[in-house]
Amino acid sequence: MAHPKDLTAAEGQRTAPDAQLVAERAAEALFARDMASRMLGIRVLGVKPGHARLAMTVRPDMVNGHRICHGGLIFTLADSAFAASCNSYGESTVAAAASIDFLAPAFEGDELSAEANELWRSGRSGLYEITVTNQSGERIALFRGRSHRIGGSVSTE
Amino acid sequence: MAHPKDLTAAEGQRTAPDAQLVAERAAEALFARDMASRMLGIRVLGVKPGHARLAMTVRPDMVNGHRICHGGLIFTLADSAFAASCNSYGESTVAAAASIDFLAPAFEGDELSAEANELWRSGRSGLYEITVTNQSGERIALFRGRSHRIGGSVSTE
Amino acid sequence: MAHPKDLTAAEGQRTAPDAQLVAERAAEALFARDMASRMLGIRVLGVKPGHARLAMTVRPDMVNGHRICHGGLIFTLADSAFAASCNSYGESTVAAAASIDFLAPAFEGDELSAEANELWRSGRSGLYEITVTNQSGERIALFRGRSHRIGGSVSTE
Amino acid sequence: MAHPKDLTAAEGQRTAPDAQLVAERAAEALFARDMASRMLGIRVLGVKPGHARLAMTVRPDMVNGHRICHGGLIFTLADSAFAASCNSYGESTVAAAASIDFLAPAFEGDELSAEANELWRSGRSGLYEITVTNQSGERIALFRGRSHRIGGSVSTE
Repeated sequence: MAHPKDLTAAEGQRTAPDAQLVAERAAEALFARDMASRMLGIRVLGVKPGHARLAMTVRPDMVNGHRICHGGLIFTLADSAFAASCNSYGESTVAAAASIDFLAPAFEGDELSAEANELWRSGRSGLYEITVTNQSGERIALFRGRSHRIGGSVSTE
Repeated sequence: MAHPKDLTAAEGQRTAPDAQLVAERAAEALFARDMASRMLGIRVLGVKPGHARLAMTVRPDMVNGHRICHGGLIFTLADSAFAASCNSYGESTVAAAASIDFLAPAFEGDELSAEANELWRSGRSGLYEITVTNQSGERIALFRGRSHRIGGSVSTE
Repeated sequence: MAHPKDLTAAEGQRTAPDAQLVAERAAEALFARDMASRMLGIRVLGVKPGHARLAMTVRPDMVNGHRICHGGLIFTLADSAFAASCNSYGESTVAAAASIDFLAPAFEGDELSAEANELWRSGRSGLYEITVTNQSGERIALFRGRSHRIGGSVSTE
Repeated sequence: MAHPKDLTAAEGQRTAPDAQLVAERAAEALFARDMASRMLGIRVLGVKPGHARLAMTVRPDMVNGHRICHGGLIFTLADSAFAASCNSYGESTVAAAASIDFLAPAFEGDELSAEANELWRSGRSGLYEITVTNQSGERIALFRGRSHRIGGSVSTE
């Protein structure tokens, strides 16, 4: 993830710098503590208010009994992107529910990326859509998550 | 998982022994190849036609940025139980879609178990309900999966 | 729906009479105003705290372009049963989200019933499972709803 | 819905005329038999391969016990748009499952429209996203449907 100081002043002014800083600091705090994403080699490629892009390489220890990437780990990548996007306002927010449609298998060695976009937010609830694609741009899964803001700040959890 | 030979002849006769053997052999074949479940320490406690029970201990490397078990790994446990139950007839079957409701957080050290039950099966499609509970019997998550039979046998994949 | 006064004192004492009265009065208030359920001939067969049973006959004007009952009307029956069960504590509660799996078609003349059961309730949120069956007891659809309590009383809305 | 003959030859050549004719004829055949959509005053505004736009006015007999449009009827509008889009290739296709998130209430007199877009299609399965908005363009609900092609032609069912 680009560090806040990589943003020039001009870029900062163009894109609501405070909101962007909040999003980046929330992601940094969240993923510094996220041992599960680290174990799976999940990387944050970028984050903006309500949006995030993460990546994961399908390792040999990630395949299931059908010799394809375990659906739970595809879900986990998408869920981490969901967390980055729904916590991007700096307020602690967790998943209440999620659904996933598996469109195509992923294989050992595939480079998966997950793009999270906010669909809606109101009160303590939000909806996020995450698309997981492989290195060829083929869609692997569509994930939709419902978030619930629990109070408190991501930075000081 | 209890080995087929642990079943007495009497038990075998009571519970459709061939179907039970098929279920156990399918689970053995499936989990022998399932590197992801192995990486996460997921254990098969039991399997019957259309049913399965699996367990996973929440390790320090399984928590997320909110210091609770990553929802993706709770999903993965449930998804492995789903796989064990929907492949229990010996025919290769994969997840087409799934949804999960997170009811309560799980913490480092928790012993989670996932109980899978078949709700419905028709043609190539099936629906399975998986309940994830912790060591106190508290429900952590409810998972529902839609399966799709792809043809071929689990044993010879 | 049985009127409260149909309950004998003995029955009342057996089953937490106040909670039962609250459930029945909430259903009465709700369905007195529910013009949509009335238009579709939906009847409340019974209600208890967290539970409800409703029925609907598939009329000629309820079929879709495939000459089977329109899935939206099967959903509507289930959704009304969901409303009766999640409002059964007397506090105004609405649907936040729902999902449905269609298991078998329903036909003109079928007598459908929807049985709603509470799966979980915490804070302002709840989960309810509704099973729709036909007159032969065959399952037509499985519906799961997530409720959100909005504050205020069902009786005085 | 625009009748095929309203398309000029030039337009026809620009937009794969055969596929467009198939989509329009499928919608005509489907909605000629769809008594439920007719009962609810649902109108087809337009259809293309994989896409459809429908409308419904919230009548006094469409409100529920909370004096807002019954969620089941919002679902029904979306489900009819789903049917128009997933049957637009002329092959008989039904809903296997669907989920809906309710974002904002709709009120008596509101003019709702449902826009259906195909997300994915493979073999006999497809995924469609339907957005329901009111006359102000406010989003009322997001619907996602999974379709299953059952064989046979829409025109000759």
